[in-house]
Amino acid sequence: MDYIVSERVKTLKPSAIREIFKYAADPSVVSLSAGNPAPEAFPCEAIRNISDEIFANDPVAALQYSVTEGYAPLRKAVSDFMKTKYNVGRDTDDLIITSGAQQVMDLLTKSTVNEGDTVICEAPSFIGSLNSFRSYNARLCGIPLEHDGMQLDALENALKTEKNVRFIYIIPNFQNPSGVTTSLEKRKKIYDLAKQYGVMILEDNPYGELRIKGEDIPPIKSFDEDGIVAYVGSFSKILSPGMRLGYVIAPKPIVQKMVVCKQGEDVHTNIWAQMVAYKFMTEYDFDGHLRTLHEIYRKKADFCMKLLDEHLVPNHITYQPIEGGLFIWCKLPDGVDMPDFCKQAVLRKVCVVPGNAFLTDEAEQSSSFRINFSTPTDEQLEKGIRILGELAKEVL
Amino acid sequence: MDYIVSERVKTLKPSAIREIFKYAADPSVVSLSAGNPAPEAFPCEAIRNISDEIFANDPVAALQYSVTEGYAPLRKAVSDFMKTKYNVGRDTDDLIITSGAQQVMDLLTKSTVNEGDTVICEAPSFIGSLNSFRSYNARLCGIPLEHDGMQLDALENALKTEKNVRFIYIIPNFQNPSGVTTSLEKRKKIYDLAKQYGVMILEDNPYGELRIKGEDIPPIKSFDEDGIVAYVGSFSKILSPGMRLGYVIAPKPIVQKMVVCKQGEDVHTNIWAQMVAYKFMTEYDFDGHLRTLHEIYRKKADFCMKLLDEHLVPNHITYQPIEGGLFIWCKLPDGVDMPDFCKQAVLRKVCVVPGNAFLTDEAEQSSSFRINFSTPTDEQLEKGIRILGELAKEVL
Repeated sequence: MDYIVSERVKTLKPSAIREIFKYAADPSVVSLSAGNPAPEAFPCEAIRNISDEIFANDPVAALQYSVTEGYAPLRKAVSDFMKTKYNVGRDTDDLIITSGAQQVMDLLTKSTVNEGDTVICEAPSFIGSLNSFRSYNARLCGIPLEHDGMQLDALENALKTEKNVRFIYIIPNFQNPSGVTTSLEKRKKIYDLAKQYGVMILEDNPYGELRIKGEDIPPIKSFDEDGIVAYVGSFSKILSPGMRLGYVIAPKPIVQKMVVCKQGEDVHTNIWAQMVAYKFMTEYDFDGHLRTLHEIYRKKADFCMKLLDEHLVPNHITYQPIEGGLFIWCKLPDGVDMPDFCKQAVLRKVCVVPGNAFLTDEAEQSSSFRINFSTPTDEQLEKGIRILGELAKEVL
Repeated sequence: MDYIVSERVKTLKPSAIREIFKYAADPSVVSLSAGNPAPEAFPCEAIRNISDEIFANDPVAALQYSVTEGYAPLRKAVSDFMKTKYNVGRDTDDLIITSGAQQVMDLLTKSTVNEGDTVICEAPSFIGSLNSFRSYNARLCGIPLEHDGMQLDALENALKTEKNVRFIYIIPNFQNPSGVTTSLEKRKKIYDLAKQYGVMILEDNPYGELRIKGEDIPPIKSFDEDGIVAYVGSFSKILSPGMRLGYVIAPKPIVQKMVVCKQGEDVHTNIWAQMVAYKFMTEYDFDGHLRTLHEIYRKKADFCMKLLDEHLVPNHITYQPIEGGLFIWCKLPDGVDMPDFCKQAVLRKVCVVPGNAFLTDEAEQSSSFRINFSTPTDEQLEKGIRILGELAKEVL
């Protein structure tokens, strides 16, 4: 049989990163290409105890069907946390729990984007989200990232000239892949532009709680008096990605449509996991856990940057020091063939992700690659970066 | 702000059942409108022990990111089970784990149906699936159900006349809502027609393991030598719906597209739940558990039918005896206003679901309503059906 596939998925392909992961699965390869939390960052014992307690007291609630919007106590706990800590959420907003933050990208696109409509995103940006937009045949328009966020002129120009722009997708803190944090000034200007042109903002903040230096910058959603921002949070980097828990805080009319779409996608999110997350947030030392994560990642990031200074910087590869997140963005000298560099690195058994994988058009040029420092051990980081340094010394 | 919603969700609304659930939430109302497994059907202690064992041995695996296709040991266990027990699955097929069976409806539609294309379904059918198809702007074409499955003439006529039919959606066993099981003869004819007209079949079998009388009928997928059937299974009715675990067995090219779409929807399904399901299937007495379920539901179904014989049948409401599943479909005399009957039942504090809620066009007529017997206690069943009988006696 000739299988007919829909127009929207015809050109959709597994991300280039997945291809790289195939090499990374070879145990002799040092993978600096993942984005997994450090194994030591999981509060395993707490989760084990909480789960056992749930099964001792109310197992049926953890196993039975639940509501699409999410477990009410968890919705309230997250809502209170975000309101108190970041002034995120208004009476005109609602919060629902999703199957990972990824599901929000899907649900918002499904709810608001017709085929051929435009989504504006940062360039580079997170491939998983770009593929989610693509899977509804959205047209992607990438805006170059500067050290403090999107290039505003390019953004305004896109808003002026692109047809049917539905939302601006932004990862405001420690962006994946670039590590860039958008400045407060730019956040305000992006908000004003969105308001002026009547488009929504999809503010995706999976790394917001992973700041290891400096001061928090208010989320764009915190100054959303006009109801134009959908804010996305995730438990993946602060509790567990395997549990698949995220959430969205957005204007009620949009959330209502997302709920109907979610009903048709997975009915509701695993309720057992939601109950565990609720108890972890409210009955355990959640703030203390976040401080533990900061210590783990500060140590790993500092170690990684020290290695970069030692092995890459003297060999013409530069990077921008980071204040949080899981990634460091490394830049080759202008004119160097970056895909070839990454390929040679793989042959020497080190995996990094080439920057073009994060562009709206993978065929475009990029002179950067992404290093992840959360997943590898210190030994792996040391070995991998040393090999990258040797390669750079030879070919750059 | 005027929120722009996409064309595909403009007319999408929460299912009528959800409205009824609002009444059902009133504790003084007897709800015969749900579709939840009986609370006593959950193997709570086994799940608790399995989960604790996983956390004792390999907690990080249960909490870390995993692969989109699903937990490899669970994929193999389900694949072996379906091959051995039902001869489902060929070398040309692949199996992936999904976030509930519902996600398969979404992924197959996303992968194969362009906006405006047609999906053929049984009339009545499961609203959750119909809404999933609708959320991609599929045109729904309902084929009347007879006591042994779809009306074949109407099916062939639809295949001849409808444009761009992408698949036929069928719930072969103990269909929701009608309780109908499609006969082997009709299964073969539906398969032949699909083959002849070059369309796929989406065979959704959540209740297949809940047969309480009679002999299993081979799934349509068991005679799929042409690679035209996507078979959907679920853990919701045999283990736990709250864990959100389903799977699809379908031709590899289709599964590949579904995997890319799933990556953009929720990355992967909760891995902890997948590990629990795997251990439950392979290290516990899975067959014994299924036999326990049969006993629970046989007893409940028999009790429910005894009550129907006692209270409804003498008052002009008929039903077709069932051999499995969770629902009984009750028919009012011709010409009676069914929505009004259901409304009056609610005023007397009994909730059943009006048949038109399950049609492709809810405004169409139906003379039936659906009773669920798995969720209510015996006392609730007795009280609810007695009240329905009194109402019938007065108004029919």
